Amino acid sequence: MDIEKVNSMDFREFVDVFGNVIERCPLIAAAVWSQRPFSNLEDLEKHFFAFIDALPLSGREGILRCHPDLAGPELQRGTLTPESQREQSGAGLMNLGAAERLRLAELNARYQARFGFPFVLAARLSDREAVPRELARRLRCLRAQELSTAMDEVKKIGRLRLADLLGSDFPKP
Amino acid sequence: MDIEKVNSMDFREFVDVFGNVIERCPLIAAAVWSQRPFSNLEDLEKHFFAFIDALPLSGREGILRCHPDLAGPELQRGTLTPESQREQSGAGLMNLGAAERLRLAELNARYQARFGFPFVLAARLSDREAVPRELARRLRCLRAQELSTAMDEVKKIGRLRLADLLGSDFPKP
Repeated sequence: MDIEKVNSMDFREFVDVFGNVIERCPLIAAAVWSQRPFSNLEDLEKHFFAFIDALPLSGREGILRCHPDLAGPELQRGTLTPESQREQSGAGLMNLGAAERLRLAELNARYQARFGFPFVLAARLSDREAVPRELARRLRCLRAQELSTAMDEVKKIGRLRLADLLGSDFPKP
Repeated sequence: MDIEKVNSMDFREFVDVFGNVIERCPLIAAAVWSQRPFSNLEDLEKHFFAFIDALPLSGREGILRCHPDLAGPELQRGTLTPESQREQSGAGLMNLGAAERLRLAELNARYQARFGFPFVLAARLSDREAVPRELARRLRCLRAQELSTAMDEVKKIGRLRLADLLGSDFPKP
């Protein structure tokens, strides 16, 4: 898909295509459409991230709260968004043993109780061994630092999803 | 549901319950959770509206773009959110004749081409005769005025949905 194609989309088509670049936040794609035409694909990404960065603290936390747990019940039930299902499966999280699943569920619960948002990680850049290790590490971080780390992960996920949608026209991160 | 129940919800439950108070914008409920505890139900509503009002112009337009057309293809296909399906059906929009549907489709298309967002109206406060009349009237408004009218309709929809969720504890608008 080239940038002329993106710029030709009406808002319905744009939200259909880009609505889950930020997990379960079609509002963000719907807002970014206001900034068209986009000069290139990096410009499109820049507008997604600028919208996120301009949100108040509650809004940035809200984005995190729209993300599912990693290896959580939605993965087993198959009720994740197609993007999340693919990303978590690709990281091997469908193939955990009962003990690994339980360990992750406990860590997820402690993380959410501590920070008030779920643990967010770009699963495609991780794997089943690294996820619990990284979760245990980030559980010990200060809240402001952890919010910043988590928002960086949201952007990594968004960048990879844009790269998928836009194919080889877009440099991989 | 009383306010103690609302205040006891973790963010997953809160987003499950209130995620569609603003149509297809669970991000907003997820952000509002940061403001708990809520002193009463009006206070909860106030935080939803304050979040909306603080968004940049593109974000407020984005909220509108997450709304479906009135009497559009999604209503016929049954792919609206349950709230929208109920609201549009209750206004009699499922029972339009072919000529009325065509007339509304033409007006919706002209409105979207003119303003860059869909026509939003609290269907429960309207009916099948009033909808095309109001759409034709608002089509002639200036853009800034129309954006303001449309955001007021988003809030009326949100207020009615909160009233449904919270039952008789909440004054009807």
